[in-house]
Amino acid sequence: MSAVEIPASHRDLVDAAGVASLSTIGANGYPQVTAIWYLAEGDTLATSLTLGRQKTKNLLRDPHATLFFIDPTNPFRTLEIRGDVTITHDDADLSFLHKIFGHYGANPEAAGVPLADRVVARLTPVRVITNG
Amino acid sequence: MSAVEIPASHRDLVDAAGVASLSTIGANGYPQVTAIWYLAEGDTLATSLTLGRQKTKNLLRDPHATLFFIDPTNPFRTLEIRGDVTITHDDADLSFLHKIFGHYGANPEAAGVPLADRVVARLTPVRVITNG
Repeated sequence: MSAVEIPASHRDLVDAAGVASLSTIGANGYPQVTAIWYLAEGDTLATSLTLGRQKTKNLLRDPHATLFFIDPTNPFRTLEIRGDVTITHDDADLSFLHKIFGHYGANPEAAGVPLADRVVARLTPVRVITNG
Repeated sequence: MSAVEIPASHRDLVDAAGVASLSTIGANGYPQVTAIWYLAEGDTLATSLTLGRQKTKNLLRDPHATLFFIDPTNPFRTLEIRGDVTITHDDADLSFLHKIFGHYGANPEAAGVPLADRVVARLTPVRVITNG
């Protein structure tokens, strides 16, 4: 369990099968931002990436990252989670990839996503900021 | 006019009076992300901040920033605009503040936002990435 918890007031944004934006820092100093699916493991937030993606390269070079959630029904209600990201390989069965796709009612093979070089990026919160 | 243009395919996301996420880089190395209102001035994106906000301090120290738009009707359709931000003071009439609030059908005095130390942050795109 991480020392920094996601407050109950905004926990629904994390538990919903929605989309969050992941901000990493590129080698050229600009934030890189993409929309991602995520899976909560307690207060840790995990996503599935491939080694070849720019965000993975950014995270391997600089693990500082931020996940940002906007309430789809109220854009003034937001949740910002800054944290440190660790990258590990998914297992031979791609268990994590199947788990996160399952959370969204999807299947990675049917969706045609790349199955090679699958890794799990886990963000451990160091600071959480809520609005609204 | 900036050298990097916002493609016509995703221009609607910029012209809509929606919410974008602004990623800046904090002194501690973590991305800071907030939801903002924005106003397009051609290919430059502008927002109204106050000098005391953390994002303003971040931008004055490190002008690298990214605006990220998610299509509210399709989360796989996104627009990422990385750029350099310049900060200038709003004028005595707070013309820019009134202009951006007007774009959203709002009034800053009625909304009760701070009127002191108002600045305009303008992001000039250096790289634009679209998805969907």
